[in-house]
Amino acid sequence: MSHRIRHPGFAAKRQSAEQAAQFIRHGMTVGMSGFTGAGYPKAVPGALAQRITASHGAGEPFRIKVLTGASTAPELDGALARVDGIELRVPFQSDPELRSRINAGGLDYMDIHLGQLAEKVRYGFFGKIDVAVVEIAAIREDGLLVPSSSVGNNKTWLDMADAVILEVNRWQPDALDGMHDIYTDGALPPHRTPIPLAHPGDRIGSPYLEVPLDKVVAVVETDAPDRNSPFKAPDAASQAIAAHLLDFLRFEVRQGRIPANLLPIQSGVGNIANAFMQGLAESEFEGLTAFTEVIQDGMLELLISGKMELASATSFSLSPAGIERFLEHAEALRQRIILRQQGVSNHPELVRRLGCIALNGMLEADLYGNVNSTHQMGTGMMNGIGGSGDFARNAYLSVFMAPSTAKNGLISTLVPMVSHVDHTEHDVSVIVTDQGLADLRMLSPKQRARAILEHCVHPSFRPALEDYFARALAGSHGKHTPHLLPEALAWHERYLVTGSMLGPAAQEAHD
Amino acid sequence: MSHRIRHPGFAAKRQSAEQAAQFIRHGMTVGMSGFTGAGYPKAVPGALAQRITASHGAGEPFRIKVLTGASTAPELDGALARVDGIELRVPFQSDPELRSRINAGGLDYMDIHLGQLAEKVRYGFFGKIDVAVVEIAAIREDGLLVPSSSVGNNKTWLDMADAVILEVNRWQPDALDGMHDIYTDGALPPHRTPIPLAHPGDRIGSPYLEVPLDKVVAVVETDAPDRNSPFKAPDAASQAIAAHLLDFLRFEVRQGRIPANLLPIQSGVGNIANAFMQGLAESEFEGLTAFTEVIQDGMLELLISGKMELASATSFSLSPAGIERFLEHAEALRQRIILRQQGVSNHPELVRRLGCIALNGMLEADLYGNVNSTHQMGTGMMNGIGGSGDFARNAYLSVFMAPSTAKNGLISTLVPMVSHVDHTEHDVSVIVTDQGLADLRMLSPKQRARAILEHCVHPSFRPALEDYFARALAGSHGKHTPHLLPEALAWHERYLVTGSMLGPAAQEAHD
Repeated sequence: MSHRIRHPGFAAKRQSAEQAAQFIRHGMTVGMSGFTGAGYPKAVPGALAQRITASHGAGEPFRIKVLTGASTAPELDGALARVDGIELRVPFQSDPELRSRINAGGLDYMDIHLGQLAEKVRYGFFGKIDVAVVEIAAIREDGLLVPSSSVGNNKTWLDMADAVILEVNRWQPDALDGMHDIYTDGALPPHRTPIPLAHPGDRIGSPYLEVPLDKVVAVVETDAPDRNSPFKAPDAASQAIAAHLLDFLRFEVRQGRIPANLLPIQSGVGNIANAFMQGLAESEFEGLTAFTEVIQDGMLELLISGKMELASATSFSLSPAGIERFLEHAEALRQRIILRQQGVSNHPELVRRLGCIALNGMLEADLYGNVNSTHQMGTGMMNGIGGSGDFARNAYLSVFMAPSTAKNGLISTLVPMVSHVDHTEHDVSVIVTDQGLADLRMLSPKQRARAILEHCVHPSFRPALEDYFARALAGSHGKHTPHLLPEALAWHERYLVTGSMLGPAAQEAHD
Repeated sequence: MSHRIRHPGFAAKRQSAEQAAQFIRHGMTVGMSGFTGAGYPKAVPGALAQRITASHGAGEPFRIKVLTGASTAPELDGALARVDGIELRVPFQSDPELRSRINAGGLDYMDIHLGQLAEKVRYGFFGKIDVAVVEIAAIREDGLLVPSSSVGNNKTWLDMADAVILEVNRWQPDALDGMHDIYTDGALPPHRTPIPLAHPGDRIGSPYLEVPLDKVVAVVETDAPDRNSPFKAPDAASQAIAAHLLDFLRFEVRQGRIPANLLPIQSGVGNIANAFMQGLAESEFEGLTAFTEVIQDGMLELLISGKMELASATSFSLSPAGIERFLEHAEALRQRIILRQQGVSNHPELVRRLGCIALNGMLEADLYGNVNSTHQMGTGMMNGIGGSGDFARNAYLSVFMAPSTAKNGLISTLVPMVSHVDHTEHDVSVIVTDQGLADLRMLSPKQRARAILEHCVHPSFRPALEDYFARALAGSHGKHTPHLLPEALAWHERYLVTGSMLGPAAQEAHD
């Protein structure tokens, strides 16, 4: 019997990916594992894509609804998108092939708060889950499942699906065993009770997932790495953002508004997040904790160095080098890393109770502190809102960060009016760019505009934005949130027409 | 000793409103009671307005920051606005005088989620609260305070203010004694624990407020009614909206997605809410509960008839006739009405746990389900977001309702792009107008647009909105959320220029 499939009943269900993919048919709703490129099924989606291609070749329709944890990888989203096999995709994606098809109008994508999908499925809002395809690290002798490098919505898929396909991935480290905490509260309203978690490190469930053997239609063995993008060293803008943020946190500690070891940190993925983690590593802060979605390289290093006591998340997102570091230190980290289902890691009850410091990226913000996290020029989907809304609305501090310009300086991150709103003025405490930090707490819209103009806007766009604000103050119909409607989206329009948000004079200076 | 001031220490601090107002000085931050025109101080604000007028007459500056529960009344917001005595107003208002000054740019107004103000004050984000001015119904022999017809943020003002002015209002019914539930969890992150409330009827605190006697600088006796606007019988549009919503809830019950007695209802105030309550009264639904902000006439009648078992709120908002009905039945209702501080009534932890059905009004929604609750034509403040965000984000079902047109048919409630976003596409489950109901759950943006076009838009605007959507589908840069940016806000621009959102042809037909 395989080292990783230690229960004979499950072992008897071993099949090839191709055999397993036969259980998925046109029109089905399929719940798949995967969160930030970790723990997604590696084999069945590809076999399914082949089935879909064959059906389409025979003139037969074959498209499915794909629900996951969050983003996956080319082997899943890319493979299924390429063969036009997805009718509806929920709740987050970052695959280039899938994204381009979404933005060409080729399929439906529903972008919802990552912390809400599982409960909405349990409420019955998404109808029946026909099949679950879930990667795990091992099946124990007692039939319990050792979760993989992400937990995501796997508990919900296993509970709710009519049929379950398990992918047991030998590549996933043995060391994962024991790091997970799977909470069971099957109650729906009006029978729910408080979630008994008062500290990021509390374990309130079991380290293992469960599934009735008779629901399992196939067990597929794989041996393939997670997406594991290489680590990119933080660039200058990210380092500047991280430095502004660290200064602000120091100030808040001095004011007595945040404890010396900060509050549980939620940190998105990417260059800025890594720069901030690096900044923390070099800072005086100690005894840190994280209550977040993802553990990436920077946070892992904080855990290894001991600056961070523990991290609660729902997924890893490590580089190949990060994986090596994790394996080196896995034993020591076992009690200090907790992976939960995303309905718990992103739960508003817990984010509010713990008082998280929420750090999220953004595409753009406007004068009044409204934030666009998802839509390029108001119409094209980038990735999705992810967990940013779960955290920002309920956090102790809700921080949004981005370089002050994009596209080689042709796009301003700060605009008169954002072209899409994911986080309203009510949910944004602080905006940080490489230019500086605007503390928007307790400010009226006009006060926020002045803070953003003073601290965040790139010099090549500041005169134009100041000019807009001044003219809006004078000419706006209502002067609570001054706008000139015919111009409010003009910067985006100009970009679509000319390839630059810069006006003619500024464009000349830029060229 | 007064019947309502039964403790000698407090009785000794009796003063006139004019004397009490002396404790409030230029530049101070003042926390005042009051929520939806109930339980606000009736005397001190007027006396303060006189002081301010005198100062201004003498060429001296005198403006204060006013924090309340929610909206108050002409005696507070109106009186202070009229004398230009407010520098900053937080977190909600509905006074015509104050609103017009906000929209003329005469003062700063900060609109935040009603459930968040108390905690942000406790975090220290608003600085020091200099003075609290809090209406109560009585002071007991033991010095405990019987709260008034609203609780609002009063516990926070009493706890945090340097000095406290109490207004003891004889007009408030004796019957209020025992209806309140004031929860004490003084812990700030990272020391918070779960809120031990699992049912809207759970009592988790004390019926009384407390304040150290030595912080009380004045006790003022009053005998004045709450704002108590007369009840307006629901109009035809409101009744149509209520009927659509009841049909939808029946459908959800039949599908097994909602219990037969529904889930705890959160209902805003106003004509549509009253129409819905009247619809419930005439419906087959029984055993109802409410976990909401405000108990208005319609909900009171449901309680009296027994269709509703109990209601948890932070405030009453009754008509004069409603007050009479309340007094008639007060004894029987004592155990079935619970008034909490708004930090509890609107707490995301509880809204999510209980699975509230959130029913809120809106100014406008767009094709893709984004909702504007606050800004007229994107720039002028109506009232504020209130508790709608506390409930909508975390509710079991998040419903937004409005007549399909406003201003005698010249404004469409459904527009290409909302001019301000308070509730994002991620937080809106259902949109209802007199035309019908669009169930937006599990839909992509384009699917949402089709549902809204089919069910919600008034016929006089439907052709134009269908035309916009069709052209956006064809011409939009990204086709996930199709928009034509130069036209997205054109309906609002047209209204500002011509007084109507109707295009020339439709305007002719309308005239």
